[in-house]
Amino acid sequence: MRDGTTVNLNRRGLLMTAAAAGATLAMPRLIRAAGQSDKSMYGGDLTSVRAAIERQRAEAIKRLQTWIALPSIAAENRNMPEGAQLMIELLKDAGFQSAKVIKTDGQPGVFATLDAGAQRTVGMYFMYDVKQFDPKEWSSPPLEGAIVDRPPFGKVMIGRGAINQKGPEATFLAALHALKAAGRKSPVNIVLIAEGEEEIASPHFAQVVHQPEVLKALSKCHEVFMPFASQSPQGSVQIALGAKGAVEVELVASTEKWGRGSKDDIHSSYKAELDSAVWHMVKALSTLVSEDGNDPAIDGWFEHVKPLTDRQKQLIAEQVAHNSEADVKKLLGVQHWLRDLSYRDAMERLASQPTVNIEGMFAGYTGPGGKTILPSKATAKLDLRLVPDQTAADCEAKLKAHLAKRGYGDIEVKITGGYDPTQTEENSSLIKASAAVYQQQGMPISLSPRLAGSWPGYIFTGAPVSLPAGHFGTGHGSRAHAPDEYYVIESSNPAVQGMADATLSYVMHLYALAAI
Amino acid sequence: MRDGTTVNLNRRGLLMTAAAAGATLAMPRLIRAAGQSDKSMYGGDLTSVRAAIERQRAEAIKRLQTWIALPSIAAENRNMPEGAQLMIELLKDAGFQSAKVIKTDGQPGVFATLDAGAQRTVGMYFMYDVKQFDPKEWSSPPLEGAIVDRPPFGKVMIGRGAINQKGPEATFLAALHALKAAGRKSPVNIVLIAEGEEEIASPHFAQVVHQPEVLKALSKCHEVFMPFASQSPQGSVQIALGAKGAVEVELVASTEKWGRGSKDDIHSSYKAELDSAVWHMVKALSTLVSEDGNDPAIDGWFEHVKPLTDRQKQLIAEQVAHNSEADVKKLLGVQHWLRDLSYRDAMERLASQPTVNIEGMFAGYTGPGGKTILPSKATAKLDLRLVPDQTAADCEAKLKAHLAKRGYGDIEVKITGGYDPTQTEENSSLIKASAAVYQQQGMPISLSPRLAGSWPGYIFTGAPVSLPAGHFGTGHGSRAHAPDEYYVIESSNPAVQGMADATLSYVMHLYALAAI
Repeated sequence: MRDGTTVNLNRRGLLMTAAAAGATLAMPRLIRAAGQSDKSMYGGDLTSVRAAIERQRAEAIKRLQTWIALPSIAAENRNMPEGAQLMIELLKDAGFQSAKVIKTDGQPGVFATLDAGAQRTVGMYFMYDVKQFDPKEWSSPPLEGAIVDRPPFGKVMIGRGAINQKGPEATFLAALHALKAAGRKSPVNIVLIAEGEEEIASPHFAQVVHQPEVLKALSKCHEVFMPFASQSPQGSVQIALGAKGAVEVELVASTEKWGRGSKDDIHSSYKAELDSAVWHMVKALSTLVSEDGNDPAIDGWFEHVKPLTDRQKQLIAEQVAHNSEADVKKLLGVQHWLRDLSYRDAMERLASQPTVNIEGMFAGYTGPGGKTILPSKATAKLDLRLVPDQTAADCEAKLKAHLAKRGYGDIEVKITGGYDPTQTEENSSLIKASAAVYQQQGMPISLSPRLAGSWPGYIFTGAPVSLPAGHFGTGHGSRAHAPDEYYVIESSNPAVQGMADATLSYVMHLYALAAI
Repeated sequence: MRDGTTVNLNRRGLLMTAAAAGATLAMPRLIRAAGQSDKSMYGGDLTSVRAAIERQRAEAIKRLQTWIALPSIAAENRNMPEGAQLMIELLKDAGFQSAKVIKTDGQPGVFATLDAGAQRTVGMYFMYDVKQFDPKEWSSPPLEGAIVDRPPFGKVMIGRGAINQKGPEATFLAALHALKAAGRKSPVNIVLIAEGEEEIASPHFAQVVHQPEVLKALSKCHEVFMPFASQSPQGSVQIALGAKGAVEVELVASTEKWGRGSKDDIHSSYKAELDSAVWHMVKALSTLVSEDGNDPAIDGWFEHVKPLTDRQKQLIAEQVAHNSEADVKKLLGVQHWLRDLSYRDAMERLASQPTVNIEGMFAGYTGPGGKTILPSKATAKLDLRLVPDQTAADCEAKLKAHLAKRGYGDIEVKITGGYDPTQTEENSSLIKASAAVYQQQGMPISLSPRLAGSWPGYIFTGAPVSLPAGHFGTGHGSRAHAPDEYYVIESSNPAVQGMADATLSYVMHLYALAAI
């Protein structure tokens, strides 16, 4: 996922410490209610499926390695048609009767259906693209998918896409192969939509999902989920009920566009008689946040911001009660929450508050020492986190209006990516089924009202699809976007599932969704 | 010179256009007064000296090429003792009886004396270091000093240091050689101080100049000058009566030093609960200047700022009257002076106002696209131009106090270089002699009350030396600090002197100083 590090960071931030403190969070009431009739829910005895998974183990690993060997990278326009084609082959091979390319103004999406003659139809979201990588930074070749010992996790596969997202997705496909090999039909029909631009913020994904035939297929679904290795290194899982939206925007102040100062960089002595693009940017930026830099101050920014519900506050209070603030702070390298807030207040802000962050900035001379120039250009890269019911489009308009009103209308506002916030009901089928499978296997669960990170779930939770959407899956992996990205194949920790157990969890999840 | 591009830019900005407009500025009264008894002032008939210069032409060029072949670069700690040693040899070779290294806490300086038994002693300032260079960017090898045709200038020498400052300095040395070859003694004794750290803002030059023996030698002098190829491409010269001071300072905001936010870059979603070093920097910077970014707003900044005198305003008015504002604006790539000032008001600001400029800035992710991080550090490189009677030391203290008072005391203030402003009286011997030599040769002159750029002249004009200081020299060159830096050896424009004529001008200048 584009913001995968977020999810990892959040999960770790919240869960490693929960596990470290030995805390198993109390099951929330709705999940408890979903825990009835466990056996029947999972399709009875799964021994034959488990045996099939074992038989197919080498084949499943080979499938993932083949996928990793073909990196599709939208930012580099690398292997995009090839990646979509391999996605189609993988899906057909796993039993999808139909799988085809959906063209967009950007890279192709894939739309596939598996009709199992089941009563219930489940929506799924895949990505076939991966993040860029530099082989020089890797200890094992990023396209080889080599399996290596990596204490304390066990045998892991190292490769670009291993965790984000080919590993979990291939594990889900292995579940379909195993059902077939065990002589079973899938307990649910599946409508699957894949994209190839997740790592560049899904700019054309709506064009895939909003195709009439895709919308029609999705209208039969009750939920959409993406395979995800949800377990922390200690085995606990966090279920996220939503995620903030995110808008990435580049602000560019240039003397050329402004029509003031010198159109080129010029000797700094001229500052005495010429306007500066850098000061123009600094002054414009300064208006975007409160004096301490912590609250957005863009006109109308809070118009659509919904406060946390009592239930959301309760979930946060439960997390706070079971975590060690000191451990979390240590993990994050932090001494103080902003404004010296209490841990609970900080966690409420994390879930509830929109942010205006400067992720990067540059202007003029940035090398060692000095260079006496008056720069003609300044660039700031912002990322804006949004909460329900803010939308990326409305926020873009508000940012532009805010700047224009204050005399900064010349500053270019280039939106480079944008997700709306996404939220899924705690009592939805997806959350109940997911929680039941985790619970059945004894995994400590925590419910997060909202991830501070972001993913394109809003395309499913928002109109016109309007379905619950989230992630499900067991197992562990990490280092998404980083060198030595890994996915645990054979776990050395009994509380963390390897690929084979995770395959079975996907089978259980399909049965749980069918039975709910 | 460190801020050499300034001088060039200023000269070009003021003089190319003056020449383009065909304007020969009226000679100011004091210069006119110095024009009496021209012949005797220059030591009578200089035919034999001129002949010696012609005979030694090849030797003088070779001397400059040898010097260029040994680049001393303080920033790279490259050839520093070797550069000082070569400086000593060049000086001894030119007739200095004494020339020796003066050690400093940084790179060595050189102190030399030429006792001609003359009544008058003249101070000189040399630099033996040059700016860094990348040979790949040059059309001719930067250490070769090749002589190439370069229309419209004529035959020029291309090399690092060609104009800044070895070319003019070697031309001055050629003048001493020519005097000797013509059987003459120098009309003045010379006290010469050279440094090897000019390109890094002369951090230890005071240690050289303030040596007791150096101070004692300087106490016999009436002025200090540096050789400089002052002519514009059209042949006019500008005499600068002073220069602004300059402080280069790096501001660094880091979460580590601040004790807030995360000590490392962290996922941007955490902005909701953590302080940002980048916002901290933006808010701090914003307090340093007025809302439009054009006036310093640092507490007490104007305490020692002296207004322009009526005479200074008059000189500016003369420049303005003789220049084409449209041409100057075109040359600078400018549509509007700040606040839409008139040309005259803009030129008065250029001479009179201190500035706070951001020459560079960087934080977080600066590559293509986005990266959702909350950066742990932000850096801004400022350059502060000072006017009399501001001092670099006082301004540094004021900047620090200003930041501390507003809650930004954690932001590191690293001074990387600093010059006080420098000012020399229009009726000083140096200015009168220089103007007389230019005038004698029919060069259009303009008097600038103060360069907006900077050079370390304050070490001579300030206490304890307290002498007039400036630049003198004819000829032309440009691209200081840039690739293909050049110095005109044989000029194709009769109004611009080549190296031989410029050599004679230095001879005339020494006689003018002796006679004044």
